[in-house]
Parts: sequence; C-alpha cells; structure tokens
Amino acid sequence: MTSPAFDISSLHAFYANGGTVASIIEAVFARIAEVRDPGIFLHLAGKESLLEQATALGAFNPSVKPLWGIPFAVKDNIDVAGMPTTAACPDYAYMPDIDATVVRLLKEAGALVIGKTNLDQFATGLVGVRTPYPVPRNAMDADLVPGGSSSGSAVATAQGIVSFALGTDTAGSGRIPAGLNNIVGMKPSLGALSTNGVIPACRTLDCVSIFALTVNDVWRVFEVAARRDATDAYSKTIPADGFGQTPPVLTIGVPAKADRLFFGDAVMEMAYDVALQMLTNLGHRLVEVPFGDFYKVANLLYEGAWVAERYAAVKDFFDTNEASFHPVTRKIYGGAKQLSAADAFRGLYALQDLKQKVAPLIASVDLFCVPTAPTHYTRADLDAEPIRENSRLGTYTNFVNLLDMCGIAVPTGTRSDGRPASITLLAPSGRDGLTTSLARDIHRGSGLTLGATGWLQPITKDTSFVDDVGLIDIAVVG
Amino acid sequence: MTSPAFDISSLHAFYANGGTVASIIEAVFARIAEVRDPGIFLHLAGKESLLEQATALGAFNPSVKPLWGIPFAVKDNIDVAGMPTTAACPDYAYMPDIDATVVRLLKEAGALVIGKTNLDQFATGLVGVRTPYPVPRNAMDADLVPGGSSSGSAVATAQGIVSFALGTDTAGSGRIPAGLNNIVGMKPSLGALSTNGVIPACRTLDCVSIFALTVNDVWRVFEVAARRDATDAYSKTIPADGFGQTPPVLTIGVPAKADRLFFGDAVMEMAYDVALQMLTNLGHRLVEVPFGDFYKVANLLYEGAWVAERYAAVKDFFDTNEASFHPVTRKIYGGAKQLSAADAFRGLYALQDLKQKVAPLIASVDLFCVPTAPTHYTRADLDAEPIRENSRLGTYTNFVNLLDMCGIAVPTGTRSDGRPASITLLAPSGRDGLTTSLARDIHRGSGLTLGATGWLQPITKDTSFVDDVGLIDIAVVG
Repeated sequence: MTSPAFDISSLHAFYANGGTVASIIEAVFARIAEVRDPGIFLHLAGKESLLEQATALGAFNPSVKPLWGIPFAVKDNIDVAGMPTTAACPDYAYMPDIDATVVRLLKEAGALVIGKTNLDQFATGLVGVRTPYPVPRNAMDADLVPGGSSSGSAVATAQGIVSFALGTDTAGSGRIPAGLNNIVGMKPSLGALSTNGVIPACRTLDCVSIFALTVNDVWRVFEVAARRDATDAYSKTIPADGFGQTPPVLTIGVPAKADRLFFGDAVMEMAYDVALQMLTNLGHRLVEVPFGDFYKVANLLYEGAWVAERYAAVKDFFDTNEASFHPVTRKIYGGAKQLSAADAFRGLYALQDLKQKVAPLIASVDLFCVPTAPTHYTRADLDAEPIRENSRLGTYTNFVNLLDMCGIAVPTGTRSDGRPASITLLAPSGRDGLTTSLARDIHRGSGLTLGATGWLQPITKDTSFVDDVGLIDIAVVG
Repeated sequence: MTSPAFDISSLHAFYANGGTVASIIEAVFARIAEVRDPGIFLHLAGKESLLEQATALGAFNPSVKPLWGIPFAVKDNIDVAGMPTTAACPDYAYMPDIDATVVRLLKEAGALVIGKTNLDQFATGLVGVRTPYPVPRNAMDADLVPGGSSSGSAVATAQGIVSFALGTDTAGSGRIPAGLNNIVGMKPSLGALSTNGVIPACRTLDCVSIFALTVNDVWRVFEVAARRDATDAYSKTIPADGFGQTPPVLTIGVPAKADRLFFGDAVMEMAYDVALQMLTNLGHRLVEVPFGDFYKVANLLYEGAWVAERYAAVKDFFDTNEASFHPVTRKIYGGAKQLSAADAFRGLYALQDLKQKVAPLIASVDLFCVPTAPTHYTRADLDAEPIRENSRLGTYTNFVNLLDMCGIAVPTGTRSDGRPASITLLAPSGRDGLTTSLARDIHRGSGLTLGATGWLQPITKDTSFVDDVGLIDIAVVG
C-alpha cells in the first residue's frame, strides 16, 4: 500500500481502507530521513513509543477520536510530557512531567506527537535563524530563511513529515513561517487555545498557533484544541463555530495603496495584487483602509513594555545565565533590563490610544486581507541585518495580537521567481470561523499543491462541518 | 422666599415657582459662611462670575438644560477653566484653559461651578487628611475623618453647600467619603465618564464619581455626564439606561459571614445586618459569597504595579520636587520608584489570575451589597496609623475598579452612636442603572434626612425616568 498524502482526510481515508498507523509512522521516519534537515527537530519520539500509542488508539474511529492516528509536531516551547522543553536554549532545558493542555487535548483526540521542533530562541524572532541548533531549511527554497519563530513546526509540516504542527504566535510566529513555506498557519483569537504548559514570550499576547497542509485540517485541529482552560488565566471561551459556507459578499479591508510596504519587492506586491483580484473574483468587496496607525501599533511590540514583558518571562534565568542566550536574543532582552514600571504603563497607554484610533477602521469591515510578509529574505540578508530585516518581516503581523485579532495565513500562489506567496486574513477576536472559511476558498482557488510535498489538495466531502457546495467549480480553477 | 433644599427637584420646583438663581447663589455663600470649614474649598468662584453665568442661562427650561441653575463643586484634580488645579499639591498647581470634558457637559446642561474642593493629595488616600491644606471636617461628626480622597466634594454636598459634586474614584475615593458623610456616592462603570482633564492616579482604573444628596440626583448628573469621549483613550460607550423600577427579586451577593471584616466595630456590623434585612424586606434574595479572592484583588492595588502607575502619572514632578509632597504620599510614591517593568507585568498577571477566580462568583449574582467602609476612624486614629487605617477603610472598595465593576454608596441609617451607616452596591460594568435603582429603594426606605442638612428626602414625581409606584408607602417608613 503506498503511503498517502498527510492531510487528515487522505490519512483517514487510508485508515478507513485498512491502512495501519504503523505504516504511517514508518512513512514519517522515512520522510525525516529523506528530508535530511537536522534543524527541524530538537527531539524525536521513539518509534517504539509511537507504535505503543498507536496500539492504544484502538480501532479506527474518527467520530470519537477526530485526530485518530494523525502525526503532529510540537514547537519546543510547549511541554510534551517526557520530552525535554528547551525553547532553543539548551541551558534552560527542563523535563516536563505533564503535557501542555493543548497537547493533551490533541493526544486525547488520537493525534501522535512525532517530536519537538526548533524555534527562534524563546520564540523571539520571525526569521528562524536565532537558534544555537542548525537552522531549519526553508522547505521551498533553501536560500531563504524558514521564518520563525515557529520555524521547525512550519518546515516539518511543509515537508510532509507531519499532518500538522503546533506553533506559538505573539508577533507573527504562527503566520510568517506558514507564509514562507507554502502552508496554512492559523493564529487563533487570544485565549481560544490554552497557553498552560507553554513558555511565555509576552503572556498578555501569546497564543498557540496551528500549521497544517490544508485549511480544513487547521480547523479540525482548532475544533479539538479550542477549550476554555481554568488553569490559564488568559483562557477565554471562544466558540469553534462559523466555519462553513463563506458569506457571499464580504467587505474586506486592505491597506491603502500608499500605505503598502514591500521594501522594494515588486514581485511580492504583484502577488498581493493577484490575491486581491482573487477575492474580487470570489464576489467580495475590497475597501482601502489607512494603515498608519496599525503600523504604529506594530512598532509598540518591540519598544518598551512588551520587550520588558519578554524579559520578565525569563528574568531570573537571564539575570544569571546571560551568556546562554543567542547573541541577538541577548541583545534584545538585555535592552529591556532597565525598563521601569512607568515605562510599562507608558506602553499600555500608547496602545490604548491607538486602539481607540483604529477601532472605527476595524468596525468598518468584516475582515482584513494583508500580505503575510512584505518580502522574502535570504539567510545572507539576515546575517547582514539580523534585527532590521526581522522587524520588516513583521510589518503585517506585529499589530495583530496587540489589537486582539485572529488571523490565518494562507498560500495564494507561486511567485514568478518560484518563491511562495501568501496572504493573511485578520478579524476581531472570535471570528476565527469566518477568516478560516474565506481562507479555504482562497486556498482551493489557488490550486496549489501542499507545502513542498507536491501532494494535491484533497477534493473531499469528508467533513460534516464543511458545506462543499461549489467546491468542484473552484478547485478546477487550479 | 425661603431658600429651598438643594436636591435638584426642590431647586427646580423653586425656580419653576419664580425663585431666582441669584438667590440660590446667595444661599450657597451664606451656607459656606455658616459651615465655617476652611478645608472644603481650595478655590471659590467669584459671586459676580456666577451671577453672569446665571444670566446667560436664559429662562428656566429644565427640559433643554436638565441641570439649570444647579450649584456643584469639583474635586481639585479635575480641570475647570480659569480656576487653578492643584491636586492638593500647591507646587504642582497650574491654570487650565479648558474644562475637563465632564465639567463642560455639566455646565452645558446648566450647572454652575461653585468651586474646587480639597482632596487627599493626588487622590491617593481614602481618609481626607493627606492634604497640606486644612482637613475638611466630617459633616456628621467632626472627630471623624471626612473620608477621601474626594473629601471636600463629599463634605460640600453633605453640608448642603452644593446639590452635587464631582469626585474621582480609583480605590474608593468616590464611595468612602459618601459613606462617612451620609450622602450618595456613585462610582460609574470605568469609561462611562470621560477622564479628559483629570489628573490621573491610575489611568487604567480611574473614573470620575458623583456625590449627591439623593439617588435621583446622582442619576440625573450621570445621564448628563456619561458620554463617549474620543479625547480619552479609556472612554467607553456605557448607556445611561436601566434606571427605574427595580426588578422585584434580585439575587444579591454578600460576603460570607466568616469573611466579613469590621476590625472590631460591632456597631458597624450590626448596621450592615440591618441593611441586609432591608434588602430582604424589599423582596430580594441574599446569597453569601466567599470573599477571600476579592480581598486578594484589593491588596494588589497598593502593591507593585498600581502604585507604580500612580508614580508614573507624576514621575517628572516627583523626581524633581519630592519635598513638595505630603509626607505620607511621598512615602507611598517613593516606594514605587524602583519598580521595574517586570514588576508591573507581575501585577497584571496576578490580577488576571484572580479575575478568573472571581468571575464565576460575580456571574452567580445580579449584584453585590457590601459595607461601604468596615468602620469609622477618628482623626486621632489616622495620626497614629496613617497607612494601616487607610488600607482598612478600603476593604470593600479597593477591588472594585480592578474588576471593572460599577458601584454606588448609599446611606442606610444612623448607628446607635450617631455615626452614619452606608452600604455599597456593586455590579459588573454597565449595570449602573440597576445598582442605582436599588440604591434609590434603599435610601427611600431609610427615611434619612440628606447629608448633614436636616432636609427631608423629596417626595416627587418630577422625573420622567423614575417609576414612582409605591413611593409613598416606602417613604412613610422614615
């Protein structure tokens, strides 16, 4: 029996037809060997342990265990019991006894943890190169940075090693690497997924994010993982609903032309225009919105208060182990050491001022469509400008959690130079279903293959929650 | 023509019958002279200026100007154009060119600013004695502290010098002095009244509060002043509705008996029991709620983050003019100088943890009824224990703004020792109308006279928004 594609519906069709989890575990390890990228995983599950877990799943029963037999990877700032958590800082490593809440929920739904993945140290960065371990290779183009901070999780997914992977997202860590690796990256509404068992970056802004090969798969994982958790003070009840038939005419905010930033990357600008044309073709209405105040919000994230919050999260360790940090991370955190409580409040006030300014803009549309990243950078670019290019990558991501919005990055096509193109849909907290529905339309419309695998998008009526009316028509476009 | 009582309906009846604003202005100054308390006002309006303003009001027309000809006082941390703002710190004083937003709205509705009132310096304190000016005398008992920080505003109202007064409330400054002076003190939902033109204490928690002789009057002022203000980043749209007939059976949370704190004041405990009996007699259902976590929230206010926020509000002035501060205030602010941004975030996290814990308790009732203050303190008590007794006064107030609740302090009776008794009703943000409706029932049921004036509670059907069914029956009790 040939190994199927790793999207969930293909795997479940495989299992329904008698395929075994053991053969999929073999396929996972075969792919890891084939990909030969020592930067992806910081820890791998033992094959024996996985086979035991597979046995414990019992008979294939996706209605009871919606992620039955699905392999996934976990960013190494999220606890998996019995695997070290490093945050890509070996001296910080510890061995957790219990799973992070989201990991536990996914395991209970039948998913199998393949391993822990590399990241920008302490989830600070959007590039994926700020790690003492080998840098994961961008799955689409090894010259490019993989994106971060959830670099390993994105690459593992794009390479077809796992069906999905958990990341985290404070500044864009769940969206940028998706955009740079031709996969889907969902950053849920803050509080939807518990951060219990996750090493904080900025506790007030952190969320667990989901990478997958398809939009349907992102939503299936979200449905399992989105649970109010009394052990996480920032947890909220965010219902996993609203995914299905996209409303026929959405009002979609896009940055006013004069406010769009691509840092000279005309190809990315063109790719964005093509994506917007796709939205128009789908029947939606685009509205240009001034973006200056969104950029001001974005700039807050690396000034004052929230850098101090990152520092606060690891203060005791940093104060005694500064030399253990990656040089760039050390520089960023060190700059926050002297910040006062007054500085923190100044940041909170500045944010509140800007929130009031952008509130009417946000209220004027159903959702926003922005480029995921303004441009691509090579590893050489980052060697030359390790901080500036990182900041630029966050142009369209940094403001999102500060404004309590949800987002999903979705591939839109392949640029003329072969690099991936991606847009991100953004909406106020709680509209995860709406953004995800539209993301599904876009991904289907793109006709793209999945990640770097060459696998086709599945054409299925497999999920009760998807209204597949019109599916074939759209998919044929690709 | 004899001068009427200063509640708004009595004053408006006086004007409707041909009484003049000039005669009321004369009565105001006559009362100021009679009261002979140099601690109440830090600045008084000129009589000539008030008479000019009275002329400018035009003919009596309360439907256009709902506060036509109503004298009021303004706490001296709120700007009134042309009157110095001191915050009870003479070296800090400045002369504002424009009114604070709330002052402007009240003037536009026909109200007349009589003067600026004394306070605990920079609104830090619940006692009223932390001022370099003479301490305002408690209107009911000159041995007692007047309560603060809005000491002068409360006493001016209780003495019948003005119909109402503005205070501010961060920790309880709009409730404690109401409770200690036999008047009504409303602390609206955060953001309902603009803080534009108000010297911040804790910007994230501050609100402008309203003192008045009757509950109806508090609500009339609230209706005028509650306006979304784009110049205040913390302003919200809080509709001034829900005031009227109280629902017949409310579920009212009260601190579990074992959690009630009166610091040995058995008379206050008895007064509180009598107030609860009054609620039962009104047909409502009392539910005991564990209060330990509310007290933990209260303690946060004078630890770490929010003390630092007070310091941050006047940092530049404090750092260069420490000697200008009241000794107790200086000690409190000075303790916050060294706090780091990490400390600030630790406070925010601790609050978030507690918010999650008390959320189900808050959701389990319609509103809460707590003592306004746990006990009374004399000025001699405060000389002996300037910080501890202040903290104890805040037992039932300090947690309220941190939990984004609204509140109203209302007199319930006179203790056996002649000191005033008061309870405070608390509810989640936006339920101002509900708490105020019940406060009106309680005040009427008490049959108390107004403040220290001896004036009877008005028995009127003067307001379209009040359903006066049953009024006479209840008022007869007094």
